[in-house]
Amino acid sequence: MRTLNLALGERSYPIHIGRDLLDEPSLITSRLSRPRAMIVTNDVVGPIYLERLRGALVREGVRVASVVLPDGEAHKDWQTLNRVFDALLRDRCERSTTLIALGGGVIGDMGGFAAATYQRGMPFIQVPTTLLSQVDSSVGGKTAINHPLGKNMIGAFYQPRLVLADISTLDTLPGRELKAGLAEIIKYGLIRDGALFAWLEANIERLLAREPEALAHAIERSCANKAEIVALDETEQGERALLNLGHTFGHAIETGMGYGKWLHGEAVAAGTMMAVSLSRRLGWLTDEDVLRIRTLHERAGLPVRGPALAPARYLDLMASDKKVEGGRLRLILLRGIGKAVMYGDAPEGDIVASIQACTA
Amino acid sequence: MRTLNLALGERSYPIHIGRDLLDEPSLITSRLSRPRAMIVTNDVVGPIYLERLRGALVREGVRVASVVLPDGEAHKDWQTLNRVFDALLRDRCERSTTLIALGGGVIGDMGGFAAATYQRGMPFIQVPTTLLSQVDSSVGGKTAINHPLGKNMIGAFYQPRLVLADISTLDTLPGRELKAGLAEIIKYGLIRDGALFAWLEANIERLLAREPEALAHAIERSCANKAEIVALDETEQGERALLNLGHTFGHAIETGMGYGKWLHGEAVAAGTMMAVSLSRRLGWLTDEDVLRIRTLHERAGLPVRGPALAPARYLDLMASDKKVEGGRLRLILLRGIGKAVMYGDAPEGDIVASIQACTA
Repeated sequence: MRTLNLALGERSYPIHIGRDLLDEPSLITSRLSRPRAMIVTNDVVGPIYLERLRGALVREGVRVASVVLPDGEAHKDWQTLNRVFDALLRDRCERSTTLIALGGGVIGDMGGFAAATYQRGMPFIQVPTTLLSQVDSSVGGKTAINHPLGKNMIGAFYQPRLVLADISTLDTLPGRELKAGLAEIIKYGLIRDGALFAWLEANIERLLAREPEALAHAIERSCANKAEIVALDETEQGERALLNLGHTFGHAIETGMGYGKWLHGEAVAAGTMMAVSLSRRLGWLTDEDVLRIRTLHERAGLPVRGPALAPARYLDLMASDKKVEGGRLRLILLRGIGKAVMYGDAPEGDIVASIQACTA
Repeated sequence: MRTLNLALGERSYPIHIGRDLLDEPSLITSRLSRPRAMIVTNDVVGPIYLERLRGALVREGVRVASVVLPDGEAHKDWQTLNRVFDALLRDRCERSTTLIALGGGVIGDMGGFAAATYQRGMPFIQVPTTLLSQVDSSVGGKTAINHPLGKNMIGAFYQPRLVLADISTLDTLPGRELKAGLAEIIKYGLIRDGALFAWLEANIERLLAREPEALAHAIERSCANKAEIVALDETEQGERALLNLGHTFGHAIETGMGYGKWLHGEAVAAGTMMAVSLSRRLGWLTDEDVLRIRTLHERAGLPVRGPALAPARYLDLMASDKKVEGGRLRLILLRGIGKAVMYGDAPEGDIVASIQACTA
């Protein structure tokens, strides 16, 4: 097991990465205020891992309830969130009860938001079971649900007390989901970790083959990058926004296509290629850089083109982005592999051309 | 105009109390990050004050949108909250736009919760227009909506940037609402300000007659007490819970009767008498104390008895209280007029007897 620390003063917490951590309940019980927990999971992950986690906790004397939600981004909404509140209230959960999110990014985002707002805040723990949630969404305290007009538009910054990334849960992850997770790992390489990018170029096939050592390394490097940035800028006043490379375009894809049609990581991959294309147009990347980035995405089995929505539709959807300020769209772009910047002055013509160059 | 300060470090904010403050938009514009605002109000307050506030801000160069919600506690729910999000997104409000809650406690709680969660947090300003919201709910950053199984069960601690209490808006307040506000003023006297309690015994008729000087004094003393407590204990780890005198019983009344049937202040008054009765049973108050407290509530036109729900129903509703810990109900009780304590060891028989003694 490898352990990283997210340094946030009194709210600091460990990120454990390793195999079969679900069978080590003391990692969880040591972080509980009281021996009560509500596990939030979905109808895909629940049948595989819920009883294993629940049983381990019950044997340690924890009173455990659970709620199983429908799987998928299309359900990251009020209606599904309310099922968590119903379960918490029906079970008389107290504000000292701990909510445990067992699943991928959707469960983590929605469970975290429920924890942030139930009785104005209860403790919560992330147990991510997808590659994407292990390398990105479970770390850093961003919680949210979607609105029909924009992804992740309603949420809170609310930190977990622990992230428990059990790599062995990836054994059951569908291949498409594994690839989607690779998109966020590539992202860390692009925005601030050129060494990770080079390592990925050398080892991407090992990740696709789910070699445990390779996965552990990629997850650890990703979480280390994320933890550093979040410790510097918890509520995204500045540097944290760089983690959104490809996300403004990507959110437009997810919202425009209907939530769940494109996986988040797939949309981020196509969105990253749009940001890369725009960075090239601004003269900040070489053709060779662009080729390296596109090739790595292709080798990871990720889309390098977005769906054929009209550029005007892209721009309309992007205008609701959380980074818009004073009506000005601010994008995360690259000044090189391993060097991201936020930029608000890209000419609209170049943005449109970049979208057109990267749509099917 | 009188100004108090709520001392919370970088998040400190002023509470302005005075007449015709709606006509002084610079009080608001000086607290905006950008010249954009969304006013959230209801269909009772809106027709009277919305255009006045909007016009004043527009003349100062602020771009102002608004959303008018149905009035009343029965609407403090997801459906109504979603109307605020719909309006914010349709108007392309950014996370630097300021939400202004113009109305009573329901608007402040719901507007504040919308601000806490829209794009993970936007600035907000409280413009309370009822006595209850001016003396209590607009100050201190508690925001929430109700759940069918419990009042204020879903929310956040989220501080406003400014509280603007325009006393002249009380000129149009219905008498029943004015009396409901008096319940929370009496509460401050009971929990920590014996001098305020004595002042109320001498001046309650002046408040009922809406004498501006008396109202200004009562509001200022209430806000001063509230600001002191919140500065000490923002997220209710300890002392802040004392502000909940009468609220555990009162929330049971509101939830049990259906939200909106009893006004919050009315339920708090009856609930306070239950807590007083229990405190007497524990030997902590004299018969004379009880008589003084009941008499003041009666003179204020407030109910001193709750509705005739069965005691078991009261206990069931109270078991969801946010102060329950480890299955133990903790109540705010009085050790004297001006001295509240939190107590978790009251015998259930005494609680039941106190409820029975104070129901119709």
